[in-house]
Amino acid sequence: MRRPCSFNRFTRVASWFVMICLFAALLGTAGRLAAQSDPLPSWNDGAAKKAIIDFVEATTSQGRPTFVPITERIAVFDQDGTLWVEQPMYTQVLYCIDRVPALVRSRPGLVNVEPFKTVLTGNREAISKLPKEELEKVLFATLSGMTVDQFQADVKGWIDSTKNPRWGRRYTDLAYAPMLDVLKYLRANGYKTYIVTGGGQDFVRVLANDVYGIPPEQVVGTAGGVKYGYNDKGKPQLMKEPKLLLNDDKAGKPEGIHLVIGRRPYAAFGNSVGDRQMLEYTKAGSGARLAMLLLHDDAKREYAYGPAQGLPDSKVGTFTQALYDEALKNGWVVISMKNDWKTIFTFEK
Amino acid sequence: MRRPCSFNRFTRVASWFVMICLFAALLGTAGRLAAQSDPLPSWNDGAAKKAIIDFVEATTSQGRPTFVPITERIAVFDQDGTLWVEQPMYTQVLYCIDRVPALVRSRPGLVNVEPFKTVLTGNREAISKLPKEELEKVLFATLSGMTVDQFQADVKGWIDSTKNPRWGRRYTDLAYAPMLDVLKYLRANGYKTYIVTGGGQDFVRVLANDVYGIPPEQVVGTAGGVKYGYNDKGKPQLMKEPKLLLNDDKAGKPEGIHLVIGRRPYAAFGNSVGDRQMLEYTKAGSGARLAMLLLHDDAKREYAYGPAQGLPDSKVGTFTQALYDEALKNGWVVISMKNDWKTIFTFEK
Repeated sequence: MRRPCSFNRFTRVASWFVMICLFAALLGTAGRLAAQSDPLPSWNDGAAKKAIIDFVEATTSQGRPTFVPITERIAVFDQDGTLWVEQPMYTQVLYCIDRVPALVRSRPGLVNVEPFKTVLTGNREAISKLPKEELEKVLFATLSGMTVDQFQADVKGWIDSTKNPRWGRRYTDLAYAPMLDVLKYLRANGYKTYIVTGGGQDFVRVLANDVYGIPPEQVVGTAGGVKYGYNDKGKPQLMKEPKLLLNDDKAGKPEGIHLVIGRRPYAAFGNSVGDRQMLEYTKAGSGARLAMLLLHDDAKREYAYGPAQGLPDSKVGTFTQALYDEALKNGWVVISMKNDWKTIFTFEK
Repeated sequence: MRRPCSFNRFTRVASWFVMICLFAALLGTAGRLAAQSDPLPSWNDGAAKKAIIDFVEATTSQGRPTFVPITERIAVFDQDGTLWVEQPMYTQVLYCIDRVPALVRSRPGLVNVEPFKTVLTGNREAISKLPKEELEKVLFATLSGMTVDQFQADVKGWIDSTKNPRWGRRYTDLAYAPMLDVLKYLRANGYKTYIVTGGGQDFVRVLANDVYGIPPEQVVGTAGGVKYGYNDKGKPQLMKEPKLLLNDDKAGKPEGIHLVIGRRPYAAFGNSVGDRQMLEYTKAGSGARLAMLLLHDDAKREYAYGPAQGLPDSKVGTFTQALYDEALKNGWVVISMKNDWKTIFTFEK
């Protein structure tokens, strides 16, 4: 009599255990399936979304000839116009313009000197017409002459207190939700994500971690020199100098990637002629490589500019027809903001 | 009769389960205790070893005022004389000297031009007496004029085929076992380990992963410019140029850390006057910071040079008495190779 009894009880305990395990496993699988079913929820189904998912599967599935070891998984992203809004003017240029009054207070000799005089009028149209060389004088003057720590604190203060007039939101809220999806998806698959921007390296590093989850050491950008020295209390400091070390634009992008990262990326995302060489360099590697360009063709939800595909011309973030044709010829994927993106910003959700 | 029977069986099953769990937990704890008992097996017990362990505990124990979030844990290491042997001449200089015959074959006009003429004689004593400016000509000429890919392949070939005469081993076998312990121990505690070297960034990147487990993007070094272009088949390439972008020595070390890493390290290791500013910059941060200098005082097992503490003077890896005194004054820790290191090289074990 004892054997069937104990066996019965033992079986029952074991069955509970097995059922609990199965249930937990099912829950886990369901969770994973749900995640797998849409790793890019802000994207509409289409060729662009499929290209990203296919690339990740090709490079992360063990046994495939295109498999990439986890330590070599590097993906690079332009920032202005690729990760966040760049129109009607690059965010960092707006920051520099806003710094001019304080600069002139500390150096009153500049008050009647161009281009500072024009900037001080606050006339945005006149400012936007300043020639590139004049604008560069404003950038050099407002991005140097302080310690790295002072600069970081000042940028942080500006970001927290300044709103974009069109959306009434902080500039850092204007990061694109679909690109945040891509960053997360790539990182979940072992990719190290880098920003490779024509914007200032020191500027972007202040916000990259909070906005994109990208730490300072994974931001490559246009870099000015810094000079090591001591303050009047003898404490070491790094002063920002008006000296260009790396112009991280066009050919400067693969050069900057070599300087800071030291190896060729597997995926590159851009949106303008400034990104052409970075995409070309990425695609020239062996195996599966992904090169994508965002076309801003959505005047209603964001902006429309090219001049590719008959879109209005733009000095900021120029996307020429030649670039568009090169993309098609080389197997780069063009993302249509209008058709491929379900939502543009996280705050719309 | 059924109740006690089933209860008995259930208890027995439960007891097995509990015992298996306890056993597994004990095994785990024993493993951890063994690992904890000596995370630095190549070190003798003493102040230097204790300083490293105390630092790791201070910065990684949750709840302590000196706790550092995992994403901010950065440690930097000089290479020559800190991670591997630098005497009687820096390894990279030996590589450059070995490249001169091939350079002269491709540019025969150099055969009678100094300093190439002296280098071609193979007379090591005469070569070691070349003034710094002359030696720099050899470095510039042998470290530029090829693509990044060609350079990497050439360095790899040289490392695999060249032996150090004193030990009859490859130069990469001359990494210090105690420093490999430190690298592993810091990484096991969430630290990102970087090399910050006066040596060439491109040169060190070729070997850093195999020797130290440090990927290319975590090597900061003296960097020459590269130029993006195309080979005769139209394929993109990066050519190494004879142009200095970053002299990663002395004040150039904190400047290079800012350029590539973008934040202040929590720990810094060096061995010469070239590392002074890096250690100073590291120690100037708040909270617990570790600054260590290796003193080569072991002529028997490696080399002895200073001139600090009455050791013989050296042009390579100079450790002055002033640096020694500054270290003591500022709470930096001096490692005595002779007293603090149980073993010097992994191959001795």
